[in-house]
Amino acid sequence: MQIAIVTFDGFNEIDSFVALNILNRVKRENWQAYIVAPNETITSMNGVTLQAQKPLEFATSAGAVLFGSGRLTRQWVNTPEVMQRFRLDPAKQFIGSQCSGALLLKKLGLVEDMPVCTDATTKPYVLEAGCTVLDQAFYAKGNIATAGGCLSAQYLAAWLILRGAGQEAVKEALGYVAPVGEQSAFIAHTLDVILKNSAEPAMALSPTGVR
Amino acid sequence: MQIAIVTFDGFNEIDSFVALNILNRVKRENWQAYIVAPNETITSMNGVTLQAQKPLEFATSAGAVLFGSGRLTRQWVNTPEVMQRFRLDPAKQFIGSQCSGALLLKKLGLVEDMPVCTDATTKPYVLEAGCTVLDQAFYAKGNIATAGGCLSAQYLAAWLILRGAGQEAVKEALGYVAPVGEQSAFIAHTLDVILKNSAEPAMALSPTGVR
Repeated sequence: MQIAIVTFDGFNEIDSFVALNILNRVKRENWQAYIVAPNETITSMNGVTLQAQKPLEFATSAGAVLFGSGRLTRQWVNTPEVMQRFRLDPAKQFIGSQCSGALLLKKLGLVEDMPVCTDATTKPYVLEAGCTVLDQAFYAKGNIATAGGCLSAQYLAAWLILRGAGQEAVKEALGYVAPVGEQSAFIAHTLDVILKNSAEPAMALSPTGVR
Repeated sequence: MQIAIVTFDGFNEIDSFVALNILNRVKRENWQAYIVAPNETITSMNGVTLQAQKPLEFATSAGAVLFGSGRLTRQWVNTPEVMQRFRLDPAKQFIGSQCSGALLLKKLGLVEDMPVCTDATTKPYVLEAGCTVLDQAFYAKGNIATAGGCLSAQYLAAWLILRGAGQEAVKEALGYVAPVGEQSAFIAHTLDVILKNSAEPAMALSPTGVR
């Protein structure tokens, strides 16, 4: 599975990079996550400038697309020339959002029939956009998942690995990134959060997890 | 407090960016964390290239220095022209390491009288370098702290905030980054890990936390 982590100027470093690092611990052929952005370079909320690994259009052909969060998401949602570059299909792709990324999913019409998770700061804007907000860290319905609170990035990443590569792959990836000595509790808690808060099983991938 | 997050080519994104994001949530005058590196640009273990915010020498004047981890740390430890650029003073600075960052602390003579934490992959090399390794996520003695497992980055960041800005500042910073709905448990667990595994109280800073 090829994974696009959509990252805009003003982005929250935890959201995009925790997902990138965890997802790239899955060792399967053609499994790879990339930072994708509308520009060649992007600057984070704390002033770190980096080069995008792929253009935004990479999301169209990716097997999964995760929308990170950031300080400027409301601006991006209202920038048609950027939003029009997305051509996503929730019947064929896994799609997730982190914190203010829920605003992007809403704008793209991807969460019309489900509640969403987001962070406390973004919550009023997500409500204003017409969403129902859950005061919890993670919620998934079918192929769409939303998460709230920067470090819920691990839930979003684990959900994607679970759906695309299975439970053993989740355990392997999380076992490495968990604090030393806390691996078992960390894996059990993460799986519990994901499974308890997934409304329908997501689309099954081919046995190799490759699209 | 000015904080240098030392980041080399091959770096682990979680280590450097979780610390950067959490530390920059502390709103105090002159409190700021930066990515510092030996080169103007650095590339992560998953191929993300970014611009360093400050040169390596910024660490000399910083109030705190955190060493991230990465795939190439053993090379950097054996690169005298880079290691000679560090002029650190544990009597005046807080110093911490994450995973393979322990090898850098060892090379700089900063963990001669204390055991260290690291990750499972790095452990044999840290033992070979002559350290005692604890199979736990966090250990601090005085002004030096070490952490193991990527997401123990939150312990290292919280320790630094606790020592430099106090417990309320820790609660505020962690409360924002924690998964939604898990804030209380997350803060309590993090403080418990730090306090239980700190061998001596660290140097007190001035009441403003500014150096």
